[in-house]
Amino acid sequence: MTLTRQDCLALDARDPLANVRERFILPDDITYLDGNSLGALPKSVGPRLRQAVEQEWARGLIRSWNEAGWYRAPQRVGAKIAKLIGAADDEVIVMDSTSVDLLKVLTAALRMRPGRTKILGVSGDFPTDSYIASGVAEFANVGFVRATPETLIDEIDDDVAIVVLTHVNYRSGFVHDMRALNAAAHAKGALIAWDLSHSAGVMPVGIAAGADFAVGCGYKYLNGGPGAPAYSFAAKQHQAAIEHPLTGWLGHADPFAFAPNYEPAQGMDKLLTGTPPILSLLALDAALDAFDGVDMAQAYAKVQSLTYLFIALADERLMRHGFTLASPRDKTRRGAQVSLAHEEGYAIMQTLIARGLIGDFRAPNIVRFGFAPLYTRHVEVYEAAALIDGVMATRAWDTDDFKARKAGT
Amino acid sequence: MTLTRQDCLALDARDPLANVRERFILPDDITYLDGNSLGALPKSVGPRLRQAVEQEWARGLIRSWNEAGWYRAPQRVGAKIAKLIGAADDEVIVMDSTSVDLLKVLTAALRMRPGRTKILGVSGDFPTDSYIASGVAEFANVGFVRATPETLIDEIDDDVAIVVLTHVNYRSGFVHDMRALNAAAHAKGALIAWDLSHSAGVMPVGIAAGADFAVGCGYKYLNGGPGAPAYSFAAKQHQAAIEHPLTGWLGHADPFAFAPNYEPAQGMDKLLTGTPPILSLLALDAALDAFDGVDMAQAYAKVQSLTYLFIALADERLMRHGFTLASPRDKTRRGAQVSLAHEEGYAIMQTLIARGLIGDFRAPNIVRFGFAPLYTRHVEVYEAAALIDGVMATRAWDTDDFKARKAGT
Repeated sequence: MTLTRQDCLALDARDPLANVRERFILPDDITYLDGNSLGALPKSVGPRLRQAVEQEWARGLIRSWNEAGWYRAPQRVGAKIAKLIGAADDEVIVMDSTSVDLLKVLTAALRMRPGRTKILGVSGDFPTDSYIASGVAEFANVGFVRATPETLIDEIDDDVAIVVLTHVNYRSGFVHDMRALNAAAHAKGALIAWDLSHSAGVMPVGIAAGADFAVGCGYKYLNGGPGAPAYSFAAKQHQAAIEHPLTGWLGHADPFAFAPNYEPAQGMDKLLTGTPPILSLLALDAALDAFDGVDMAQAYAKVQSLTYLFIALADERLMRHGFTLASPRDKTRRGAQVSLAHEEGYAIMQTLIARGLIGDFRAPNIVRFGFAPLYTRHVEVYEAAALIDGVMATRAWDTDDFKARKAGT
Repeated sequence: MTLTRQDCLALDARDPLANVRERFILPDDITYLDGNSLGALPKSVGPRLRQAVEQEWARGLIRSWNEAGWYRAPQRVGAKIAKLIGAADDEVIVMDSTSVDLLKVLTAALRMRPGRTKILGVSGDFPTDSYIASGVAEFANVGFVRATPETLIDEIDDDVAIVVLTHVNYRSGFVHDMRALNAAAHAKGALIAWDLSHSAGVMPVGIAAGADFAVGCGYKYLNGGPGAPAYSFAAKQHQAAIEHPLTGWLGHADPFAFAPNYEPAQGMDKLLTGTPPILSLLALDAALDAFDGVDMAQAYAKVQSLTYLFIALADERLMRHGFTLASPRDKTRRGAQVSLAHEEGYAIMQTLIARGLIGDFRAPNIVRFGFAPLYTRHVEVYEAAALIDGVMATRAWDTDDFKARKAGT
């Protein structure tokens, strides 16, 4: 039985999150399936930034650190993210970038497991996590070892100080079993840290179920804007033990005492380093209001519906053009993206973008589509599949223009 | 001979930078002498942010990383700052916070001077620099030692890997002799790094005259907005040797290859770590246009004129109220601030702020006034001195209200 556009409109009519799309500004002429790279603009952001610039900065000037609440923004925004990932308000703080935050977490973990000589990751995880893990390992004089997904649990041994994993794989959308891996790490006395960049905001992460640390970015499904600040989670019971080398003034117990020696603040505050980029941070703050009243179980149900629909349409109309599915069919192991492999993936994605369907390409052969539950409609999934089908049927991607672009990149 | 308001208006009439003030939005009812904490809002920032949000993010979405030039913003903005501090365009890059940037510089320096066991600072320098130096020292298993200003040169010995100094002291405004200290460090084979947060944008820093590294913040005299991203300088000849542990994806030789292993980029790009906060970075980018056509020698001449005037007025009208000068009288050793010490400094500054004169207070007894050369007028200096005189003469600061505030902070 063939899926029709009408079927998809019917799914949208039943979607309990359908109205949330109105909280975003999206161009009329674009089908945007790349919220996993840069989330769309929430309507709340523009007015908040105007207020921050025209009132708080221009008129309040330095007084706005206190009077406009800039000073506690890392904690306030952290508490909003905590609700999305299932943490307590005082277990999450917003700061720096995912990479910088991960360095703090990994160095802290090495201190908490003295004598252990390895950071353990997994092959195929997001590169920057591996790069930082290897950077930390080299400077801390320990090893960074990568297991394969198949051998991961077996490779957690008594030498592992911390396991670092990306919750949802950026290429395939595969979701690790967080609870099982937390237990496996703890069984060997190791800590575990998760990168939630591709899971926060699309599923109930349940970070409180045994995870020790987490980091994540603010600009994908959290819609905080380009390069929005990142966040860190640390389980309450670990916070007292955390020590890291990025001991900047904002992590001091009394920043405005300007004391000569560093004394760490209590709780998550000690993870702060320098003065945060307030304009970007306030954009994220406002953006998170798009989640008001959105239950993460409901969001994930919609994600599963959208991705199931796209896979079904791909089976019907796209696989015949040489695509293969590069994401799990098991909906419980799949994040909010569907990846298709095709050897001409680069030229195909360029063609789709030129025709108004924005996804992205990951070398060497992955075309990747993200299905952000707050603003993606089922009918857009239908239109995306129809457009891809048309582009493939007419070989529109196979032009000198797109081949030249590939050569030029 | 007493200085009059008319004298100050005459100085403004002769000020070659007088028209630059029109590039800023400043409240009419405030005298703002705190540009050394948060620079005023340049008019160019609001429109640039609106374009970034409403056009580039909302409509361009992920495409704006290339099409709107977000991707090369750290280098592009770095080149603007390079011109202000006397560096080559490809010796400065914008990223992270001053504290994070300093960790990269210090760890790189320790690698470049293997076997040396000390980072040397000086007492009274900006606390976050010392905090980061001690954090790095502890994790790298070397020492962080602080000389006094008097013993500084003598304490540079063969064990020192790097000397780290704040160019202009945040409390007194004292300016180190950069050229002499560069030479002293190099004479012992040590490297030297400068924090330019209180000097860039107000004087010709001349960083190319022998400095190895520098860092600085974007939100003081550079007017980039609250928590604007920071910048790093590395002399060209050192760039190939730099290694640091914050090896995030943006510092990779080919970030979009998503290669499994880290390979550093060439030049300053290797200092990049995570995705930068683009909205804050574009605000800084636009803000720096306020420096168009402003020569730093001219800016420093105006700084010296403004600070000389304030000290002269303080001598005439303020010292009799119990203030003492906490900044150098020698104009060649003075930055763009004048600090006065008074044991009731906290309550005095609260009173001044309530009456529209914004400076700031640094514990235990310093009231601090910054004279940003791009927008401060001589007549404002006159009005500030007159207001302080009036507040002191009437003991307006000596009220239960301000004493209660002090107890509450």
